[in-house]
Amino acid sequence: MRKYMQIFQGTAFSSKSPKEIQVLKDHLFCINTEGMIERIIAPQDPDFQPLLDAYQGTDTFHRLAEGQYLLPGFIDLHVHAPQWAQSGTALDIPLYDWLNTYTFPLESKFSDLEFAKKVYEDVVSTLLANGTTTALYFATVHKEASILLAEICASKGQRGLVGKVVMDDPAQNPEYYRDADTSSALADTEEFILAVQALAKSAKQGVYPVVTPRFIPSCTDEGLRGLGELAAKYDTYVQSHCSESDWAHGYVQERFQKNDAFALHDFGLLRDKSVMAHCNFLDDEDVQLFAETGTAIAHCPVSNAYFANSVIPVAHFHAEGVEIGLGSDISGGFSPSLFDNIRQAVISSRMLEDGVNPSLPAKERGVPGSRITIHEAFYLATAGGGESLSLPIGRIEENYAWDVQIIDTKIPTAKLPIFDENEDLHDVFQKMMYLVRPENILEVWVQGERIHSR
Amino acid sequence: MRKYMQIFQGTAFSSKSPKEIQVLKDHLFCINTEGMIERIIAPQDPDFQPLLDAYQGTDTFHRLAEGQYLLPGFIDLHVHAPQWAQSGTALDIPLYDWLNTYTFPLESKFSDLEFAKKVYEDVVSTLLANGTTTALYFATVHKEASILLAEICASKGQRGLVGKVVMDDPAQNPEYYRDADTSSALADTEEFILAVQALAKSAKQGVYPVVTPRFIPSCTDEGLRGLGELAAKYDTYVQSHCSESDWAHGYVQERFQKNDAFALHDFGLLRDKSVMAHCNFLDDEDVQLFAETGTAIAHCPVSNAYFANSVIPVAHFHAEGVEIGLGSDISGGFSPSLFDNIRQAVISSRMLEDGVNPSLPAKERGVPGSRITIHEAFYLATAGGGESLSLPIGRIEENYAWDVQIIDTKIPTAKLPIFDENEDLHDVFQKMMYLVRPENILEVWVQGERIHSR
Ligand SMILES: [Zn+2]
Ligand SMILES: [Zn+2]
Repeated sequence: MRKYMQIFQGTAFSSKSPKEIQVLKDHLFCINTEGMIERIIAPQDPDFQPLLDAYQGTDTFHRLAEGQYLLPGFIDLHVHAPQWAQSGTALDIPLYDWLNTYTFPLESKFSDLEFAKKVYEDVVSTLLANGTTTALYFATVHKEASILLAEICASKGQRGLVGKVVMDDPAQNPEYYRDADTSSALADTEEFILAVQALAKSAKQGVYPVVTPRFIPSCTDEGLRGLGELAAKYDTYVQSHCSESDWAHGYVQERFQKNDAFALHDFGLLRDKSVMAHCNFLDDEDVQLFAETGTAIAHCPVSNAYFANSVIPVAHFHAEGVEIGLGSDISGGFSPSLFDNIRQAVISSRMLEDGVNPSLPAKERGVPGSRITIHEAFYLATAGGGESLSLPIGRIEENYAWDVQIIDTKIPTAKLPIFDENEDLHDVFQKMMYLVRPENILEVWVQGERIHSR
Repeated sequence: MRKYMQIFQGTAFSSKSPKEIQVLKDHLFCINTEGMIERIIAPQDPDFQPLLDAYQGTDTFHRLAEGQYLLPGFIDLHVHAPQWAQSGTALDIPLYDWLNTYTFPLESKFSDLEFAKKVYEDVVSTLLANGTTTALYFATVHKEASILLAEICASKGQRGLVGKVVMDDPAQNPEYYRDADTSSALADTEEFILAVQALAKSAKQGVYPVVTPRFIPSCTDEGLRGLGELAAKYDTYVQSHCSESDWAHGYVQERFQKNDAFALHDFGLLRDKSVMAHCNFLDDEDVQLFAETGTAIAHCPVSNAYFANSVIPVAHFHAEGVEIGLGSDISGGFSPSLFDNIRQAVISSRMLEDGVNPSLPAKERGVPGSRITIHEAFYLATAGGGESLSLPIGRIEENYAWDVQIIDTKIPTAKLPIFDENEDLHDVFQKMMYLVRPENILEVWVQGERIHSR
């Protein structure tokens, strides 16, 4: 009768819809050898007790202790892996200076594989310890180091989607940090795709190559066109930055007399497997185009406070049917935690709704209808990320991957303020969303494998 | 030659001015028996080596390990201690509902001293573990439980400033949770002041009674006047809420035909020892009055995102000479960490500067000159808090109390992304500000005593 690879007994939270969560109290979660959730069994189900009897006491059986809860692993849709080395610094300067004084010099150091290994191993481990089971990474322009990042994801068990960054325009990028020319940028990208696809064969959880023009300003037309063709040829993911700030938005309008979204679309870069970071300045037609092409938005609320000159109207875009997930945007965003980004997503949305300037009358201050709830922010970090990537992840539901974090609300050094034994589970959920620290993340599982514990 | 109670050797960061930090690299910090910093000695000082020789190897000598740094303890100017029990919940509802559906019912439970003890011990320990060495607390209307909170601060070694809350207007407060009448509110407050002043005699670090009208809407004129008189009679601290939201601001204007600040002043409640929470809607005259009376602002950036309908123009108020510190505002703000509030203070100020609505042109979107740097936010959490309370705290400087947190950037489970052995200490400081978790707070000292370690 024992056919499952793992069985968990405990209480899980998962999104039922963008605005509602589902509480699965004291259920059994049955994981098959592929690491997928094959069955979820409620206590009142007739199969519950027989299964419990069959597995209890074996080492495939895991009962969560009192005060422990299951959440889906987080899906981080926008991480600049090399920038982890400067996370938290230099956030007081404008984007252009930040790129040229800090970021490009740092990224250029990833030609050194020794250095790359040190930083990449640390960022992948750190994200796992923060509950991030899937991450969509920008690496650097260097093909070898980018392959190394995919290898590190593969070996640490994280579901990594990795892009070798393309910056092929000699006029727009510093001499010390760019692709040698357009044809080598495209050749390196193609070799990178093939290498990661080969690597994927031995990674149970999946690793994926991502076509990655940094953003329109760093690429030539020919480069962008070639990347669109590669994405189609190999049916890969695509990632870039889109309409992030006044400057970036204005640059593209000047160069193409259209918005980022339509320019990217012209080059074949908006696909169902495309994820565009930020997108603060999309207009209604852009939003429509995103919805039609299945392009997703990586909403990066922490980073946006520093570099996007505005708050993205995420409630509005979500209502228009665009897929949206969350991104840490390390290191434009300082935090490797999607918990922090969930909190900031709610906070920023409220600031958009109420407005910020107290010297304006309340009626003229904000944009009504902009706020999102903590449930919706949780959805973005989990189910929304899964939909954005078209992968069966981000929910604790049958036929989804067993990508979970086990939260302990009772560890003595980071106890959550739960004083009532019978506290409503919806309140427990909210306390977790607002107060969990990495310390509370006891275990992290990806595709049925435990890949982090403390 | 051994005359100091403790000597520390290590690198410390402290505010030199609101916008600049001072790095004391590898200095000696000499703490006297009163728990004050008597001397700080640079490595090149002729007294350095003799002192090192005299103390090294004794158990009064503490050398910080590689990767450990000293920061001033944080000063939290606004905490509702009882609300810790609901921290993180119900933040999706308006202030009025939040108070009546969640907060008042919870606070009313603090008539039960058993329950009060459980929550108050936990909140004080939690704040200490988050690096908060001084806290200005609202308790509840209950005299006994409020005294208990002061006792818990005294025995745990935290510098606690505690107020029994006054809500004496029967028309404005729920029957189940308010003072019985105005005269008992004032009598209880006076007894509370005397009890805490007696307790203070045996608390090395100091505990202080605080006159605490909840906010104007919950008090009668007579109550407010009586509280002003008590504050003068006993020369106590005063705390309340001031011009927090559109609703509260409008309520006071309607009742008194003037702003909160002037109304509070009429009752003798704006003093050098006064700290007013939020203050988002102060106008220029209010600001002037604050500066003249020495009244400080407790800026609560996390909470403001939920309940204040705006971002306080803190850079502007600071430039006008008003004393400003930071407050967590548990549980209007969900986080017990002033690190989180430092981060949000910067983020919110940038949102005020750039504005939030991307459909407005950049020029009409925000309020130029509003941003504060991470250094300024750190100042608010430390030196600014000390100035607000007129106490020698919040700086690592001679004649200040030894209230510090020892940060470990290298613990394996919460390592900061520092990959360069010789990383600039200003960058290390920024990484600490943005990335430290409670896990990195290795030890906390107040008035020369170690009161938290992990
Ligand atoms: Zn980015
Ligand atoms: Zn308050």
